[in-house]
Amino acid sequence: MSRTRTGPASPATGPVHEALAGLPLVDHHCHGVVTADPGAERFESLITEGAVWPGSGISPFDTPVGVAIRRHCAPVLDLPRHAPAAEYLARRAELGWREVNRRFVTSAGTDVFCVDTGYAPDRVTTPAELAAVAGDAVAYEVVRLESVAEALAAQGVEPGEYATAFPAAVRDAVRRRGAVAVKSVAAYRTGFDLDPSRPSDADVTVAAARWLGAVGRDGGETGGRAPEPRPRLDDPVLVRHLLWTAVDLGLPLQLHVGFGDSDIRMHRVDPTHLTDWLHLTSGTVPVLLLHCWPYQRQAAYLAAVFEQVYLDVGLTLHHVGPARARAVLEEALEITPFHKLLHSSDAYGVAEFCHLGALAFRQGLADLLQSRVDADELGLSDALRIATWTGRGNACRVYGLPRDGLTEG
Amino acid sequence: MSRTRTGPASPATGPVHEALAGLPLVDHHCHGVVTADPGAERFESLITEGAVWPGSGISPFDTPVGVAIRRHCAPVLDLPRHAPAAEYLARRAELGWREVNRRFVTSAGTDVFCVDTGYAPDRVTTPAELAAVAGDAVAYEVVRLESVAEALAAQGVEPGEYATAFPAAVRDAVRRRGAVAVKSVAAYRTGFDLDPSRPSDADVTVAAARWLGAVGRDGGETGGRAPEPRPRLDDPVLVRHLLWTAVDLGLPLQLHVGFGDSDIRMHRVDPTHLTDWLHLTSGTVPVLLLHCWPYQRQAAYLAAVFEQVYLDVGLTLHHVGPARARAVLEEALEITPFHKLLHSSDAYGVAEFCHLGALAFRQGLADLLQSRVDADELGLSDALRIATWTGRGNACRVYGLPRDGLTEG
Amino acid sequence: MSRTRTGPASPATGPVHEALAGLPLVDHHCHGVVTADPGAERFESLITEGAVWPGSGISPFDTPVGVAIRRHCAPVLDLPRHAPAAEYLARRAELGWREVNRRFVTSAGTDVFCVDTGYAPDRVTTPAELAAVAGDAVAYEVVRLESVAEALAAQGVEPGEYATAFPAAVRDAVRRRGAVAVKSVAAYRTGFDLDPSRPSDADVTVAAARWLGAVGRDGGETGGRAPEPRPRLDDPVLVRHLLWTAVDLGLPLQLHVGFGDSDIRMHRVDPTHLTDWLHLTSGTVPVLLLHCWPYQRQAAYLAAVFEQVYLDVGLTLHHVGPARARAVLEEALEITPFHKLLHSSDAYGVAEFCHLGALAFRQGLADLLQSRVDADELGLSDALRIATWTGRGNACRVYGLPRDGLTEG
Repeated sequence: MSRTRTGPASPATGPVHEALAGLPLVDHHCHGVVTADPGAERFESLITEGAVWPGSGISPFDTPVGVAIRRHCAPVLDLPRHAPAAEYLARRAELGWREVNRRFVTSAGTDVFCVDTGYAPDRVTTPAELAAVAGDAVAYEVVRLESVAEALAAQGVEPGEYATAFPAAVRDAVRRRGAVAVKSVAAYRTGFDLDPSRPSDADVTVAAARWLGAVGRDGGETGGRAPEPRPRLDDPVLVRHLLWTAVDLGLPLQLHVGFGDSDIRMHRVDPTHLTDWLHLTSGTVPVLLLHCWPYQRQAAYLAAVFEQVYLDVGLTLHHVGPARARAVLEEALEITPFHKLLHSSDAYGVAEFCHLGALAFRQGLADLLQSRVDADELGLSDALRIATWTGRGNACRVYGLPRDGLTEG
Repeated sequence: MSRTRTGPASPATGPVHEALAGLPLVDHHCHGVVTADPGAERFESLITEGAVWPGSGISPFDTPVGVAIRRHCAPVLDLPRHAPAAEYLARRAELGWREVNRRFVTSAGTDVFCVDTGYAPDRVTTPAELAAVAGDAVAYEVVRLESVAEALAAQGVEPGEYATAFPAAVRDAVRRRGAVAVKSVAAYRTGFDLDPSRPSDADVTVAAARWLGAVGRDGGETGGRAPEPRPRLDDPVLVRHLLWTAVDLGLPLQLHVGFGDSDIRMHRVDPTHLTDWLHLTSGTVPVLLLHCWPYQRQAAYLAAVFEQVYLDVGLTLHHVGPARARAVLEEALEITPFHKLLHSSDAYGVAEFCHLGALAFRQGLADLLQSRVDADELGLSDALRIATWTGRGNACRVYGLPRDGLTEG
Repeated sequence: MSRTRTGPASPATGPVHEALAGLPLVDHHCHGVVTADPGAERFESLITEGAVWPGSGISPFDTPVGVAIRRHCAPVLDLPRHAPAAEYLARRAELGWREVNRRFVTSAGTDVFCVDTGYAPDRVTTPAELAAVAGDAVAYEVVRLESVAEALAAQGVEPGEYATAFPAAVRDAVRRRGAVAVKSVAAYRTGFDLDPSRPSDADVTVAAARWLGAVGRDGGETGGRAPEPRPRLDDPVLVRHLLWTAVDLGLPLQLHVGFGDSDIRMHRVDPTHLTDWLHLTSGTVPVLLLHCWPYQRQAAYLAAVFEQVYLDVGLTLHHVGPARARAVLEEALEITPFHKLLHSSDAYGVAEFCHLGALAFRQGLADLLQSRVDADELGLSDALRIATWTGRGNACRVYGLPRDGLTEG
């Protein structure tokens, strides 16, 4: 398996950098990559959490992530570092999506992927296809709970049956797909300022009647965006029911936290709003807080005081870029137990993010750990253990993955 | 035009520092400077967002901004760096306000000012006077909306007429003064946790009756401070009406966000509370988030996902001082598109802040960009473009300013 | 008195480091240390704000604070730096608690302790015992207000008498113990999003009847934790009454803010929720915000604009460790007047935290100040003044302590 390429100007290197460069990563949360050439405008829209704003003069390439792509992805496509956006897009089209995907996915050096298959406005790789692109890799599926609920609504369910039909549909999806985890985007739908208690079946029936009735009429609420082609689960009672369904299921639960597109109401997704729910569900399922920025410290607090809470700063790391990845990781790790931080890329659509997410993680974490070793604040063997745990071991333990032979943790 | 003076001990320099040192800035949000010698106590009160606390032993000079004044402003007055406060005040009085203003305003290297004229407890320069002090500069006016409303109330308006009289008064003020933007201090009056929808005329009439009645009685609410000499617009319905009036007007809207005096309720001014309103007003006017600290990451998120949102960290930069300006800019730029960050000083009263705001911005941004160039994370030509956009080009574009000859962006 | 030991690999040193290394500190908020050998599991539970999670594989030693203990405390016990946890625990047991306490408490270099005696699930040193362990030191008591209220409830009080009996009990406790301050853990009980006004006696009577009735039945609410052996004051009206009792008392009031165990609802303890209360109580008692992380910037804002507000980042500094102490202090000091920051360790139970809190404070603050001196952003004499004020002088002034001979401020 090929490893990440380190640029010649990389300022700090050392044994931790070498160890992380050689460590096959577990990407515990990602999506598929597109199986077509996206075209310039679609590519630009895939690299931003905003949108493409034609005529504005504001290009997604003129952002920290755009700069990072031109710096760190251009060389993978045989271009000079910092190649202009137009040259980048031309070369990408020239190589074609199969070769582009192959280069970026293999250069990520990831050999285990946990793939959220519930968001795919584009035609993207299945988990098996993604693993095949990576070469010697495996991919597990993560079931997005809102998608299961929305599919259930689309196929038709009686309100009085919803409280039992939804958990059954989740169990069925998990079994059919061999999923290792479930995921919720409650952050996008209601935020976390919810009544923490388990809703009664009667409450669920009332809420389901309201929601399914609305779905029947207009396709659901979309919070300021154009209506989506399918129903959108955003009823607070049904979101609570969904979270408790995950608790009953017993699999690790991934929760989107913080940074995302304009559909987020950021002030409502501070994960510490989940505190009462975490007390109530203590001793049940692992809860993995994804992305987290700008709430990485709040997520770290929860990971420090609740046994079941884990976090990553995926998505964030490639959006801020390698130039700023260490700074975000420093905050994420201020008080976090070293068994509680995981790696994810949250790559969707463009394979660049597999590469860039892995690179920003490796470089940022290595800079952080090596500098502490150099200052004699951390022993080298401890630094190496923390690197291995974070890049691989913690995910293997939380998800019960078999490919753990490389770790000692 | 004179340029900023760089101290001999400045640690990092390079081409980006040189470019920013030579770039005439657009200060897209400032106020006037006093046209009198302020006296020691008034000077101290002008350099703090707190107050002067006689007898407490706590001096506004014993703060980060006080240290920065003694370090970076003393030499402009021919004093040694780190001159004691008493010497500084004596020398300032000796030179007199005309010479002091001239030195600091010219040393800022700003050739375009956008001046909020709606806050002036002291006798301060008009926009034209400020431009004249700077020499080869121009100044545009920014109309503070609350001041228009309060002037309308003071001169008398019937509640039933307010819903149309206020927009008319704003249009009139904008036309008479040739304003390039309007500004709201809703942050100080209600915070941003408002119903985002446009209030009906009937609702505005009811609210205006309530407010104008209260104004008639006691001069309005002041939220824990001594009553002000004029009515204070703090009714939530009228604040919403004010924001929607800005949308209808079509000019860029500046919003105070975050840091300010004790009249702020910080937890209510997280700008992400504006998310629903930003969805509703998408495609209308540019919204410029001012200052932002400690919510610079939240502001950056909004700038990344909403086409119409921009931000600055003015006011913040001179209060934290050049020693910490880069750190704040690093957070402000983590995910911000490079066309979305602007420079402002928010200088009010003391001309020192024109100088110090410009210096902290130039030094902080140059340190940030040059270090990325040095680490080969950013190309030099990209760094120079970003510097020019941020210091000048972005403001010229947003406000439609003619003096854009220096930029390429 | 022995001074902190500086490791040989300490990266930056200079006159500020030397000055801080030689400055006897005032620890304005700490607790007692255990007077028994705690055993491995109890030791681990004492070094985390989480819990010990048997069978999880997650050890409190595998955290930033665990790494800091192995790095900075092991040498004090004659072990090599980064000694393994098992060796550390064995050596600690071998030396015995008396010798362990003596070494760590004296190495902290603290000669004044302000000791919160209201939290002691273990048998710990009294203030006098702690001062004796330190050698040439004095200790003052801080009365925890909730403990007074809960003791009053436990001994029996009529609801109609509570409004006067509680202030009387506080005055009595303060007088008997010669306390220099009082403390509230309102953050743990209700958060700060409270009606800021003083409750009427009638409201207090109603609330006391409700609370005392509940206490009689079940020992009080515990917010997701196991019931405590004594009543728990968490009624919002009684918490407000408690805070106003502190105002009437006239002593400095310490408030827990931010970081703590899982009983905190972090989103409700942003200290800016106190803004209206701070306006109402302006001119009365000093208010000292403790710990503050992750709200150190919000606390700094309050300290900058309210005369009576002070802050520290105790507890935080040893949990993030010396590797990250400077970063937290940088944020805490961004706009804070230099007379407003204090040192505390918040050490409880393990004497390691006396040592580590002092070391992280000294090293972090010295790195911050010396780097500004080296960059010529701060004069050396100013840096030395700020170091002395922060480590000692500010506390002496706020609490009116007599042992102030070392400071100039």
